[in-house]
Amino acid sequence: MSSSDIFIGETIGTAILILLGGGVVAAVVLKASKARNAGWVAITFGWGFAVLTAVYISAPLSGAHLNPAVTLGIAITSGDWGDVGVYWAGQLLGAMIGAALVWLAYYGQFHAHLTDREIVGAAADAQAKAVEAREKGAGPVLGVFSTGPEIRNAAMNLATEIIGTFVLVLAVVTQGLNNEGNGLGAVGGLMVALVVVGIGLSLGGPTGYAINPARDLGPRIVHALLPLPNKGGSDWGYAWIPVVGPLIGAAAAAGLYNVAFA
Amino acid sequence: MSSSDIFIGETIGTAILILLGGGVVAAVVLKASKARNAGWVAITFGWGFAVLTAVYISAPLSGAHLNPAVTLGIAITSGDWGDVGVYWAGQLLGAMIGAALVWLAYYGQFHAHLTDREIVGAAADAQAKAVEAREKGAGPVLGVFSTGPEIRNAAMNLATEIIGTFVLVLAVVTQGLNNEGNGLGAVGGLMVALVVVGIGLSLGGPTGYAINPARDLGPRIVHALLPLPNKGGSDWGYAWIPVVGPLIGAAAAAGLYNVAFA
Amino acid sequence: MSSSDIFIGETIGTAILILLGGGVVAAVVLKASKARNAGWVAITFGWGFAVLTAVYISAPLSGAHLNPAVTLGIAITSGDWGDVGVYWAGQLLGAMIGAALVWLAYYGQFHAHLTDREIVGAAADAQAKAVEAREKGAGPVLGVFSTGPEIRNAAMNLATEIIGTFVLVLAVVTQGLNNEGNGLGAVGGLMVALVVVGIGLSLGGPTGYAINPARDLGPRIVHALLPLPNKGGSDWGYAWIPVVGPLIGAAAAAGLYNVAFA
Amino acid sequence: MSSSDIFIGETIGTAILILLGGGVVAAVVLKASKARNAGWVAITFGWGFAVLTAVYISAPLSGAHLNPAVTLGIAITSGDWGDVGVYWAGQLLGAMIGAALVWLAYYGQFHAHLTDREIVGAAADAQAKAVEAREKGAGPVLGVFSTGPEIRNAAMNLATEIIGTFVLVLAVVTQGLNNEGNGLGAVGGLMVALVVVGIGLSLGGPTGYAINPARDLGPRIVHALLPLPNKGGSDWGYAWIPVVGPLIGAAAAAGLYNVAFA
Repeated sequence: MSSSDIFIGETIGTAILILLGGGVVAAVVLKASKARNAGWVAITFGWGFAVLTAVYISAPLSGAHLNPAVTLGIAITSGDWGDVGVYWAGQLLGAMIGAALVWLAYYGQFHAHLTDREIVGAAADAQAKAVEAREKGAGPVLGVFSTGPEIRNAAMNLATEIIGTFVLVLAVVTQGLNNEGNGLGAVGGLMVALVVVGIGLSLGGPTGYAINPARDLGPRIVHALLPLPNKGGSDWGYAWIPVVGPLIGAAAAAGLYNVAFA
Repeated sequence: MSSSDIFIGETIGTAILILLGGGVVAAVVLKASKARNAGWVAITFGWGFAVLTAVYISAPLSGAHLNPAVTLGIAITSGDWGDVGVYWAGQLLGAMIGAALVWLAYYGQFHAHLTDREIVGAAADAQAKAVEAREKGAGPVLGVFSTGPEIRNAAMNLATEIIGTFVLVLAVVTQGLNNEGNGLGAVGGLMVALVVVGIGLSLGGPTGYAINPARDLGPRIVHALLPLPNKGGSDWGYAWIPVVGPLIGAAAAAGLYNVAFA
Repeated sequence: MSSSDIFIGETIGTAILILLGGGVVAAVVLKASKARNAGWVAITFGWGFAVLTAVYISAPLSGAHLNPAVTLGIAITSGDWGDVGVYWAGQLLGAMIGAALVWLAYYGQFHAHLTDREIVGAAADAQAKAVEAREKGAGPVLGVFSTGPEIRNAAMNLATEIIGTFVLVLAVVTQGLNNEGNGLGAVGGLMVALVVVGIGLSLGGPTGYAINPARDLGPRIVHALLPLPNKGGSDWGYAWIPVVGPLIGAAAAAGLYNVAFA
Repeated sequence: MSSSDIFIGETIGTAILILLGGGVVAAVVLKASKARNAGWVAITFGWGFAVLTAVYISAPLSGAHLNPAVTLGIAITSGDWGDVGVYWAGQLLGAMIGAALVWLAYYGQFHAHLTDREIVGAAADAQAKAVEAREKGAGPVLGVFSTGPEIRNAAMNLATEIIGTFVLVLAVVTQGLNNEGNGLGAVGGLMVALVVVGIGLSLGGPTGYAINPARDLGPRIVHALLPLPNKGGSDWGYAWIPVVGPLIGAAAAAGLYNVAFA
């Protein structure tokens, strides 16, 4: 693949990933959405089919990494580091475009939600949690853009992101062994998508499963830039965890692959 | 494929698409249905498996476009405009047949629902929303047939339909690159179905994701024609948006394909 | 395939179909079950994966019809009526075995449920519906075994069953066109399973989608025979509809296939 | 496959199975989790995608049994007993590692949950059930690690586990007939995963569907060893049932295979 195909493929693919992934969160949490309160099953399948759609579209151009941690894992296992910077640049740009498209698709919902000064979440303790989150720097509807922890503790949150990404990247780097080296066709994309649904269901509880530095950082930048009313802070104090944790998890998975599978 | 196979395949396929797609909405919103209040996850998977079933059945005859926007996208990327009119005619006829079959399958439910003058939706604000919708021209249970916006704003609603259809058509026109040119077999149909579930979960909140002119217009005509008691208006003022938006989105996806993928 | 393989395969496969399909209903409606009130999505996916499991296991022996309506449809489209009786006998026997296995797997739940004289369903109107159903002849927990209508009207209920089975059998008889004549392998079984989930979500609301004479009649016989306390009637007045409706729907689908696809 | 590949593959695969399977239970039942109260559909799909992920990763090394009952069934049908001990050792070790990883990923949630002395479950009768369970020896949050019955009766609980495992192992041993002897590739792993979702939905109600001795025993040992506050007992009186039941069910399925399918 040429570097320009890689850049274009990763930009398009990651934009679609974040458009659909951020979109399902917007659909479930914002006011005046038909999907409001559709629940955690909706969110985890929504993110999974976001992966499926994005992989399906971008695989022919760039191989559909769509995640700097996946790119790192593949570089370690393949030994080919040549295009890592191109992949990462496309992924971050794509994530920012995708977050802006969520804002466009849910423009009315964002404004209905925020001008009512309503806080995300319906249960009694959601109010208290939102206040606490805002004191830490997370404004309302940041959750549509980026992840945040239920219990704020750097070591614990990092551990959860490392473990989740470890599972994802181990599945990605071993899949060539199942698919006879055909790369990511339709079946490979389906399998990775369902792995992501599984990680969301099983390991998403504590931190919201970023498991992808671009998925978290790109939209956080867009949240900081967008002219949303009453949007509050972007929680920059937490921003390093969903970047560093996934990269560590990916390196660990790639290391295990090189020792046990290669 | 012959023009008559295309016409028959699209008519049968789109009829099944709307029978199952409209059916799941009827199942979830009408009184005296076992699936009542089964929620947004049920609706989005119901529509996705409607796509799967309809593609599976009609692909051998017509290639299973089942959507004028898909036909437009494929015409732009292939350069072959010969059968566009045949596809569109079959799709509109099929959608009307499908909507009539929903009415037949849920005949008792429609009558139990409407003769109680009950308004769709259980939450307190549903009543107000229904009154507002009716003032705009949308009568009760129109939602079983056609889409409508949560926040009525032509520019915003058009943008949401454009974005959703862009994702759908980009997935359709690129899938030949994944499936090695075999067209829509079982796996291709499954992938498109799951893409549609994903679009529903992620981008369905604001407008109910028509993403298909025939899916919206055909059933709206049938709603206008059917002898339902107390059915109210068919909201013709909104009807152009789910026709024009998807066609624009499809053209944009096909254009991107021609620039970046072809 | 030999007649004995067909008989054994259909018996095993239909037993597993009903064990898992009846099981999910028991899981959702009976007291002292971890899945209680898990909802319509659980029931429809449970029946779908019952189909998947049963097809996967019995396809190598008998081709996995598991449904007299499917056998009828395939006989009409293939012109081969030789083993129809063997298929039907295995299906009915298997369905009875499966229903007895549900009773065994949920033995404690059935007894906890019935000895509390609790009526299935939690909503206020469930009590009234149950009383009405019992007057018609449907005793408590009959729903774990066989289907029943929400609105009792023979013509309407028959129409719904005909439409649902028409979709199922059309998908089955056309699938050879997608799978290049390989019959039901893993992918074919998956597709049919998801078609059944779709029919359940979309067309299950009015009558509970029997769409299979053996699935309804076999368990109804077992309900009549089992020594359950306070079990009430088996609703024999309704029993002909989920037998006759599916056979008509299957014949219609096979006829359309012979005209439009063959 | 070499014995060391088998041991490594089973250890890694079963660790991932239990990490994701135990994880989804933790996600749904513990306090301060984003997935809290996501319901039985979330749990059953979470376990299914745990199987999918674990099979996908470990199949190239060990064939992905991940379950002593599956190993027993395959030994009986193949007649090859050579590596049974290696499989079982890797499975038990992996299950213990996986349970410890659940504890690590949900460390904060376990402590928030237990230090509030909150009992799992929200309904009124959950309190009484928890008290009863504790009298029998099951402490709080044991459900994240191991299974337990809703109605405690050895014969009934054993019967349910035998039936569930019978279905699982019959699907595993017959799948070579569907996949033309290619073993477990991506499609085979998907099918088994969906079979497990189906067993969970349909047969999980009475006992929580261990259907795997290592899945239950390994985490129970870890529950006994972990320094959790107020953790209560590990319910050793029940521990033999999810070991013996699955082994009997597997032997029965393998026996049926040898008689009817081989």
